[in-house]
Amino acid sequence: MHAADQTESALTEETLDPDDWDGTSELAHQVIEDAIAYLRDVRDRPAWQDMPDDIRAAYTEPLPHGPTPLRNVYRQVSEQLMPYPMGNVHPRFWSWYMGSSNFTGALGDFLAAILGSNLGGGNHAAAAMDQQVVEWCKQMLGFPASASGTLESGGSMANIVGLTVARNVMAGIDVREEGMAALPRPLRFYGSEQLHSCHRKAVEALGLGNRALRRIPTDPALRMDIDALRQAIRHDRINGFKPACIIATAGTVNSGAIDDLDAIADLAAEEGLWLHVDGCIGALIAIAPINRGLVAGIERADSIALDPHKLLHAPFEVGCALVRDSGAHHGAFAVTPEYLESTPRGLASAVWLHEYGMQTTRGFRALKVWMALKQHGIEKFGRLIDQNIAQALYLTTLIETEPELELAAPNSINIVCFRYRPVPWTGDLKALNTEIMLRLQEAGTAVLSDTTIHGEHCLRVAITNHRTRRDDLDLLVREVLRLGAIILAE
Amino acid sequence: MHAADQTESALTEETLDPDDWDGTSELAHQVIEDAIAYLRDVRDRPAWQDMPDDIRAAYTEPLPHGPTPLRNVYRQVSEQLMPYPMGNVHPRFWSWYMGSSNFTGALGDFLAAILGSNLGGGNHAAAAMDQQVVEWCKQMLGFPASASGTLESGGSMANIVGLTVARNVMAGIDVREEGMAALPRPLRFYGSEQLHSCHRKAVEALGLGNRALRRIPTDPALRMDIDALRQAIRHDRINGFKPACIIATAGTVNSGAIDDLDAIADLAAEEGLWLHVDGCIGALIAIAPINRGLVAGIERADSIALDPHKLLHAPFEVGCALVRDSGAHHGAFAVTPEYLESTPRGLASAVWLHEYGMQTTRGFRALKVWMALKQHGIEKFGRLIDQNIAQALYLTTLIETEPELELAAPNSINIVCFRYRPVPWTGDLKALNTEIMLRLQEAGTAVLSDTTIHGEHCLRVAITNHRTRRDDLDLLVREVLRLGAIILAE
Ligand SMILES: Cc1ncc(COP(=O)(O)O)c(C=O)c1O
Ligand SMILES: Cc1ncc(COP(=O)(O)O)c(C=O)c1O
Repeated sequence: MHAADQTESALTEETLDPDDWDGTSELAHQVIEDAIAYLRDVRDRPAWQDMPDDIRAAYTEPLPHGPTPLRNVYRQVSEQLMPYPMGNVHPRFWSWYMGSSNFTGALGDFLAAILGSNLGGGNHAAAAMDQQVVEWCKQMLGFPASASGTLESGGSMANIVGLTVARNVMAGIDVREEGMAALPRPLRFYGSEQLHSCHRKAVEALGLGNRALRRIPTDPALRMDIDALRQAIRHDRINGFKPACIIATAGTVNSGAIDDLDAIADLAAEEGLWLHVDGCIGALIAIAPINRGLVAGIERADSIALDPHKLLHAPFEVGCALVRDSGAHHGAFAVTPEYLESTPRGLASAVWLHEYGMQTTRGFRALKVWMALKQHGIEKFGRLIDQNIAQALYLTTLIETEPELELAAPNSINIVCFRYRPVPWTGDLKALNTEIMLRLQEAGTAVLSDTTIHGEHCLRVAITNHRTRRDDLDLLVREVLRLGAIILAE
Repeated sequence: MHAADQTESALTEETLDPDDWDGTSELAHQVIEDAIAYLRDVRDRPAWQDMPDDIRAAYTEPLPHGPTPLRNVYRQVSEQLMPYPMGNVHPRFWSWYMGSSNFTGALGDFLAAILGSNLGGGNHAAAAMDQQVVEWCKQMLGFPASASGTLESGGSMANIVGLTVARNVMAGIDVREEGMAALPRPLRFYGSEQLHSCHRKAVEALGLGNRALRRIPTDPALRMDIDALRQAIRHDRINGFKPACIIATAGTVNSGAIDDLDAIADLAAEEGLWLHVDGCIGALIAIAPINRGLVAGIERADSIALDPHKLLHAPFEVGCALVRDSGAHHGAFAVTPEYLESTPRGLASAVWLHEYGMQTTRGFRALKVWMALKQHGIEKFGRLIDQNIAQALYLTTLIETEPELELAAPNSINIVCFRYRPVPWTGDLKALNTEIMLRLQEAGTAVLSDTTIHGEHCLRVAITNHRTRRDDLDLLVREVLRLGAIILAE
């Protein structure tokens, strides 16, 4: 090809790369300035605010046909998106249970996208880092080095990975080939009544059926009742079922209760069952110097789900599944078609990371975790977990000293459940507390969620937040009391 | 709390936020400069290079205990990670089938992490944008507005979502509750022999078993043989199975073959089967003005998987599942526990996006797609797809004019399969072609992959790359011929 043709070809062929790198660079620098300000000043903004109608309407515009300068696109992002977040980067966001992200992690996600690599596997640096972060997860939990693991889109998929391996190992037949209908006896999985909803979705997806997931009652501290579990297993065996897997929870979503992992591990061993620990909330307490004893025994699991986008505050998404028997793990997912065969050298001369889960293409989730762990060190993350737990204890104390507030569940980690219960008053407590929650939110003061514990409605404060300070909790209590009184007066 | 105490509390409580925002900002500006240069100059770097041993060894370092300045962490990233990518951002990366990312998308991922919002759902702007991007996906494919959809981690999960709905709808029983063992007749799914491996993983995970997935032979153009499909369905009915779902492929991973979607849709309608289209490779050809006719009929599917991280070059990860019957879609995944109940106002007064797939927490995948679509407009993305297909045709022509090169499959879209076959020579063609592929890679010239078609090994060039130019393909052909001659001479 002649030089002239080459030039022509370069000219006539289009690309997504900017014509004007300098202009793009200038805009990107503006994005950085704005992002720094966004996080630096987050405390001065409302924790949440509703979108005005015109902004809501903008999100119904149809597919754009022609181009718009990137600068204008970004203006729309800064005006119509950034002011209306869910709120979990805010110091007084305590709803559900999620991390509050961090700037270093955001740089990690940016660099991952610039690098562009696919973590389906292969011989390249991102794949090596992905495996290193899995190693670090094992080290954090005291899990054996011989175990395998995979970074997943979150805790739900990490749980599904563990439960898939459990199902396949315990089926006793080649369930991958033959399917669930070929099982001689139906499998039974066990978890407490406080089990996260993703397990129901998991057993339904895996073809076990919701019915195969036995919900075991809990003790007053909302931990799985071990005697009831033992009886359920015995009962199922007698009735022709095959008890297969116990799902212990290290930190329930409702109240943070941690099942007695050692007792359950003993029982699983005795009964020959697979032990999966859902540690999405609590597994990482294993790195917290003061509280790590709460999750002792977790390292005895056959599989564990943990969630760096919660207590490590990695930007979404990153969960992690660990499996003690790496062969069983690989055996549950490996399928190698011709076009993915390994080669003796080059890019395809390495493990295929997609053989440890359901995805084929995999994003580079490891970098944001790696960068933040390197920067802060695991000891600081451990202290931050202790700090959140101490803050929950502090809030518990505040609640206990206020006659109009009532704890709704024993507090064990960084989740506090309580309600506003004015005495004497006999109205609808659920409506009253919901209204308090909504007004807190609408004023942008704080975001809580609500739930039902021991059959009663309550407010729920989950302090998975590296920006929360104790004075934020003082403010919360003050505002709950103030709003409660106002609503009662109305 | 007194002001003095507040200060003390602020001082003693730690956070992941930097003490020194200015220093962090300075570093972030450096990251931007480097990232701009990284993509601007990508053509001047090798498409792939192996890691030296010391860098490989760095990835086995244990969990870091104490802190490291972010600047040093970033230095490690720039020296040990960025020079060793998979290579898919490079103009001569044509391995497997993946997009080549883009700078705007990287900004999108960064901003998503700064915003921090969880796309599990809720009333906030990111959730509105997530739904808007799903609408846009429907619009791109001509799918009805009444359909539902969800952004997923990639094509594999998007396919699993579609197949889960298919399974549940076709089961005829409450399979979520009762499990696969309760089915009166085993279900059968159908796909061509060229089906992507993720479908095998899907039917295994879903408890159907690999055996339930019937592989239908293909015609010489590697498209599903419709007569064979019809016979397989008839045969299964006679033998007591329940034919449930046809998986048509719009763009096979091996050769880009597009099944006859209209004929298959007719057959599915006739037989009362669910039609799922795996459009991870080809669905988006629907937006390409010249080639859109190739995927006519795709809008007749009951469910579709498409993959914006392929032909839209969104940074990993983002796939999308669309389902015609939104009720069936929701019915396959919705589980609403107490702590996620909706409220009349506030953050929880909106749809729960996690009720349309397996994840609970969901990252903000929409932003990178939204920003790039806004910036370039869909018409440009359409032209880029036509451009890649034209480039594949160009390469095909080059191959056809070289006596030592041989096409291995008919070329229909942007995948070209060929081999180096010197005449007269009777050695091991697979070894020879593999060696050519590896040397191309090791020299950093180009990254190809290989596969087996019609039982024979071949090299495979998948041009899903907005940076590729025709002169890159000239270079490829020259280098293949040159390396082939050198290897033969050795
Ligand atoms: C105990 C528990 N398990 C699993 C999950 C699911 O994790 P993810 O939201 O990351 O999918 C959660 C989420 O809050 C959880 O609290
Ligand atoms: C035809 C086809 N289907 C599905 C997939 C899986 O998509 P993903 O890698 O995004 O999971 C691919 C990936 O290349 C594919 O080519």
